[in-house]
Amino acid sequence: MTLDDILNEIQIAEKIVILTHEAPDGDAIGSSLAMKLALKQLGKTSDVIIPEFSRLFSFLPGAQEIMQESSIKEYDLAIALDCGDLKRLKSGEEYFETAKRKIQIDHHGSNTMFGDLNFVNPASPACCEILVEMFEYYGINIDKEMGTCLVAGIITDTGGFRYNKTTAETFEFTAQLLRKGVNVSDIYKRVQDTKTRANFELTKLVIDRMEILEDGKVTFTYITQEDSKKNGAEVGDHEGLVEIGRDIEGVEVSIFIREKEDGTYKASLRSSTYVNVADICLMFGGGGHQMAAGCTFKESKEVVKEKLLNEIKKVLK
Amino acid sequence: MTLDDILNEIQIAEKIVILTHEAPDGDAIGSSLAMKLALKQLGKTSDVIIPEFSRLFSFLPGAQEIMQESSIKEYDLAIALDCGDLKRLKSGEEYFETAKRKIQIDHHGSNTMFGDLNFVNPASPACCEILVEMFEYYGINIDKEMGTCLVAGIITDTGGFRYNKTTAETFEFTAQLLRKGVNVSDIYKRVQDTKTRANFELTKLVIDRMEILEDGKVTFTYITQEDSKKNGAEVGDHEGLVEIGRDIEGVEVSIFIREKEDGTYKASLRSSTYVNVADICLMFGGGGHQMAAGCTFKESKEVVKEKLLNEIKKVLK
Repeated sequence: MTLDDILNEIQIAEKIVILTHEAPDGDAIGSSLAMKLALKQLGKTSDVIIPEFSRLFSFLPGAQEIMQESSIKEYDLAIALDCGDLKRLKSGEEYFETAKRKIQIDHHGSNTMFGDLNFVNPASPACCEILVEMFEYYGINIDKEMGTCLVAGIITDTGGFRYNKTTAETFEFTAQLLRKGVNVSDIYKRVQDTKTRANFELTKLVIDRMEILEDGKVTFTYITQEDSKKNGAEVGDHEGLVEIGRDIEGVEVSIFIREKEDGTYKASLRSSTYVNVADICLMFGGGGHQMAAGCTFKESKEVVKEKLLNEIKKVLK
Repeated sequence: MTLDDILNEIQIAEKIVILTHEAPDGDAIGSSLAMKLALKQLGKTSDVIIPEFSRLFSFLPGAQEIMQESSIKEYDLAIALDCGDLKRLKSGEEYFETAKRKIQIDHHGSNTMFGDLNFVNPASPACCEILVEMFEYYGINIDKEMGTCLVAGIITDTGGFRYNKTTAETFEFTAQLLRKGVNVSDIYKRVQDTKTRANFELTKLVIDRMEILEDGKVTFTYITQEDSKKNGAEVGDHEGLVEIGRDIEGVEVSIFIREKEDGTYKASLRSSTYVNVADICLMFGGGGHQMAAGCTFKESKEVVKEKLLNEIKKVLK
């Protein structure tokens, strides 16, 4: 049984590193910090390495101890969380590759099983929800601090309990945390609702540029590198922009493309009911979930738009 | 005990009418339709009278049977739901006043106790959540249809499980409904996320006009009657506009004012953590909840802005 094997690896390791995907969201950071707290209960110290993350998450217990890098070159054990493939670990890839043993725990359907031990449940709405199950199996006490980290991840990846992967267990676990005194509403506000000023300014641009296409079934909008610079956008400041189009009545797919520092375009797609956007992004070397996926292009934004629209048109009803 | 008295009134009545507040939201409509279904289980037919409501709610079970008015002039029993005072029943006021017996069930702190029997719980996050408690006490079976109406109200009034009044019971009840097959995610999307095209266009205006004041602690924005007309705005199309300002990092109070057909301005206020906006609105003849309240002005929008800002400044930290 993988869960027992994972526990065994943790028990024999001394130097443990916890890693997650680039541009980390609440589920990535929340699961990393919850894992560190769980390891502590198991008598293990560990390093969480995340090179950069939005200051909106700095309220999470343990966030101050997150390291940007480490002088340790060879950990006994690396645990990658919420990351579908090795490349998305970015600078964490090195720590993962050089570790003696590699575990990865994730919920992406497109997971490439890149660890020695892989605990992957694509049916789970959040990596943090997988951890709840694991921790309960291990008899770990989910206290207020750990609960705060876990529910931050759950709220992020269920879109505030809105996505259809949200389970009865998600709601029951949240009820338990509320009874334990976790301030769910405050966490919700911080991870889901709060917009930085930069994010607000980018929202304005995204809405002003929104094109409603294909009989109102598709939206397209974009942010250039210049927009991001001008508004002082940092990591995390582009969150939520792709959802704006999808939430308009009748829209099935929203496309949001963002020019990155190297001039490439990162495309984010969301669907409303039936289009599998992970399939579409896969065609362009990307991936993700059925209703939320992404891919990267080297072409101009006009070409990106055309390429994506061409594929989306084929599957629109 | 009020609950037994209410049941007694229902049992002896023949002609029953269900009423709710003007500009009805998901909690108003959801509680009305759930009540009708509950009365049916108690062997009673009833009329739900709601003169107009957003088409986004027409998916709710029983929405097709909602009446705009009734030829019955004197009901045996009127049940007002989710309505803090008689005036907010608008055209429903007449049916309420002429009914032989009057019951009202509500969760507004400012409730004026205008019924013969009043079941008011200001601690409850939604009128629908009060109904869950009532129906369970009466031994009524909360099936998929009734559950759909109830969770629509709960999602609306908890802002999709985000507000701090959301209880452990709210999450547990939602878990139960999920297990019964209620499509919570679909209801969430319909009542909370979906923006009509008119709402999207108004969002654009509201964001473009957003003023960020008082060191970033207050926002002000507005919609004129001309904006509403030009975009074909209907009942419900102004929902969510006031929250846009509040969600910007550092903002404590957001003000959104909207010109109505008669030229008056309806002000909506939201607060983030400590300002009691119900108190402020009360000064201008309005009311509501601590973090969400409203009032109406006959002055110009510049004067409204100044009056509200003056009061808000006094309580800003």
